[in-house]
Amino acid sequence: MTKEMRLKIFWIVFSVALLAGAQTASAQDAASKQQQLKHALSAYGQAWSADDAAQRAKLLAGIWDDSASYTDPTADVKGTAGLLSVIEAFHKQFPGARLVPVSSADLHHGQFRFAWKAVGADGSTVVDGMDFGELGPDGKLRKIVGFFGPLPTRM
Amino acid sequence: MTKEMRLKIFWIVFSVALLAGAQTASAQDAASKQQQLKHALSAYGQAWSADDAAQRAKLLAGIWDDSASYTDPTADVKGTAGLLSVIEAFHKQFPGARLVPVSSADLHHGQFRFAWKAVGADGSTVVDGMDFGELGPDGKLRKIVGFFGPLPTRM
Repeated sequence: MTKEMRLKIFWIVFSVALLAGAQTASAQDAASKQQQLKHALSAYGQAWSADDAAQRAKLLAGIWDDSASYTDPTADVKGTAGLLSVIEAFHKQFPGARLVPVSSADLHHGQFRFAWKAVGADGSTVVDGMDFGELGPDGKLRKIVGFFGPLPTRM
Repeated sequence: MTKEMRLKIFWIVFSVALLAGAQTASAQDAASKQQQLKHALSAYGQAWSADDAAQRAKLLAGIWDDSASYTDPTADVKGTAGLLSVIEAFHKQFPGARLVPVSSADLHHGQFRFAWKAVGADGSTVVDGMDFGELGPDGKLRKIVGFFGPLPTRM
């Protein structure tokens, strides 16, 4: 084996190892982002479901960016106080209601979607819908846009 | 009737007229926004479906904000040139493919969603999904985030 051949083989092995390492790191990163989102959306759902206002604020503290926006067909607010006031109004309208995820969350490039339903105290669905949002690099939710009901049929 | 009573009645009638006017304006505004979105998404779908690159650029010119972002599981680009390069790659992979809307668009607070499918030259669906996005006050698309396939089932 010539010196050049040995060098060539070394570079091939080295490049493959680098590439494998990078892919593993990237897969780990994706899995960790998915975990972050799972954690954030779990706390988010609990905050919507909590009857106690102080408990809601505590749940949002770790996962809701304070400059985050929340928008649905009936609301368009900024920050933790904004979201808390929307949840407060939801509980006034539907005392004892809970937010239940209907799908897992889909995530790419920090952008996610998931389906949910709000279940009243009597177990009936009071509204269902889909949320789209952004997960920040710190694992906090930066934006949620909700839509109610199914996708509109084509006109 | 006293002068005060007449004044009171005048103010009630005046207020009701103002309110009715504001509501009509708001309904007209919502309908006009929906029209803007319909126009923009129609041109957007045609741009994805056009085999000719110059034709695609022409279709996007009126409806794609030049600082708009386009993100899907395989792409994350900015501006008209960015979106055109993604559509170019799509046509290289699926020559003759067309983008077909599957639902109407849902719009509130400048935020929208709609479902679509990409149909290959042989008529089979090559990929389907859902797009979420933002419509600017000027009627141009400012952001699209796409997801492929159905919502993931709950784990």
